[in-house]
Amino acid sequence: METKPTEISISKMFGGYNKRYKHYSPTLGCSMNFHIFFPPSSSPSHKFPVLYWLSGLTCTDENFIAKSGAQRAASSEGVALIVPDTSPRGLNVEGESDSWDFGVGAGFYLNATQEKWKNWKMYDYVVKELPTLLHENFPELDTSRASIFGHSMGGHGALTIYLKNLDKYKSVSAFAPIANPINCPWGLKAFTNYLGENKADWEEYDATCLVSKYNNVSATILIDQGEDDKFLKDQLLPQKFEEACRKINVPLLLRLQPGYDHSYFFIATFIDDHVRHHAQALNL
Amino acid sequence: METKPTEISISKMFGGYNKRYKHYSPTLGCSMNFHIFFPPSSSPSHKFPVLYWLSGLTCTDENFIAKSGAQRAASSEGVALIVPDTSPRGLNVEGESDSWDFGVGAGFYLNATQEKWKNWKMYDYVVKELPTLLHENFPELDTSRASIFGHSMGGHGALTIYLKNLDKYKSVSAFAPIANPINCPWGLKAFTNYLGENKADWEEYDATCLVSKYNNVSATILIDQGEDDKFLKDQLLPQKFEEACRKINVPLLLRLQPGYDHSYFFIATFIDDHVRHHAQALNL
Repeated sequence: METKPTEISISKMFGGYNKRYKHYSPTLGCSMNFHIFFPPSSSPSHKFPVLYWLSGLTCTDENFIAKSGAQRAASSEGVALIVPDTSPRGLNVEGESDSWDFGVGAGFYLNATQEKWKNWKMYDYVVKELPTLLHENFPELDTSRASIFGHSMGGHGALTIYLKNLDKYKSVSAFAPIANPINCPWGLKAFTNYLGENKADWEEYDATCLVSKYNNVSATILIDQGEDDKFLKDQLLPQKFEEACRKINVPLLLRLQPGYDHSYFFIATFIDDHVRHHAQALNL
Repeated sequence: METKPTEISISKMFGGYNKRYKHYSPTLGCSMNFHIFFPPSSSPSHKFPVLYWLSGLTCTDENFIAKSGAQRAASSEGVALIVPDTSPRGLNVEGESDSWDFGVGAGFYLNATQEKWKNWKMYDYVVKELPTLLHENFPELDTSRASIFGHSMGGHGALTIYLKNLDKYKSVSAFAPIANPINCPWGLKAFTNYLGENKADWEEYDATCLVSKYNNVSATILIDQGEDDKFLKDQLLPQKFEEACRKINVPLLLRLQPGYDHSYFFIATFIDDHVRHHAQALNL
């Protein structure tokens, strides 16, 4: 039950370091891994702002580190990347691994209210536990300067967490986010099981509903969406989010990228733009 | 037994396309997969030079495509990447999967002479079958302009294939190559099993031996080697290759990179330099 993070791997990249840590999470009630990419440091006293990446369904803390190539821009811009896992693991809740879009690897960055899934508190883990843990254990990080982005389920996570915590994050962006989960099969399945039948509770974790409530967004929201993404029409629904933003004049840059799909190849292609979007907001 | 390649996946990246193909290889006697990255094309009649990537132990044709980020520079330089698998697969030769450094995933880019491993003809597959297949099936590729690079076992493959075929490849480079396999455990195990006990035969697949024979190398050989690579001292032996090059004035740029290990994080960090090294030699 070691809550202090232990380094379990390290690998140099673009002059900085990918480091993987293991710790016991009191919020989730299990052991968790996360990655940090530390940019090269010019002086021991330098503090890096933090950019949280939230991954999509089935991912761990490893996919983004191995495939996105984000470390290149993070290194040149001087931003630390914080990459948590996507759900609690190893709890052996009955049925937790029965499907790839629910349970393990599919925490949806919310706080479950249903007894069976009571450990699924990824919202609190990302918004509360992780920043405190980083602040207490990594003096080279300035957690007061934070931004957040993600992909698919993690794009949903980034948008909702940002909108509910405008004081905590300087900027948000997303790749192919699940933008209106209460109206898509992935969201219906997850929200019914994690949150129960009361749809008013669901709206607290739906970016399209939330953006209508929080009209004090000032930083432009950046979203990239591949036009050949097979999940675009049924699951992602970025146009619903776009409509909601337009209605209340929330600044949104939604870029539809012809020919791109839902994969990390799409993410890698546009990751530099996203890292720079955040670096600018973080006053670098 | 379809020798013509069939496209089995496609994904857009950096304006070009990663495409995966399956075909029956008469050389190897089994079905094989390979990847091509096609850069964005300015006109239908444009032909791209080809840059072969040879992967290391345990890899398939997928690792480099997913993790190297080479497509960025390949796209901007206008070079097609050709990424074959690392051995025959699915032949069910007894013991072929007993170890990670021999058999499946460990073809060592040679032509085995021992009866049991008669299908292990990765040298002929890369040097003969693949270029012909590309020439016959992909009019957008100019296979007469070719270069070659690789990692670890694939760095060994690139160096040996280049040295034995100076007329076929414009340039070579390698990341952490097995530079003197006849003097390291990986090489001893592979060469004994694939080639038998006659050490004179082994020298035909050892870059350090070969470079002493072929003194008409004119293009600079580029090698990057991480100083924290755990295989450096016992398996890779780049200093042996360096000595051999120095003796006969073969131009070699061996860059020792402090802090880097043997992983794709190391490769991704320096991949642009390698792609540009080849683009220059390919007269782009």
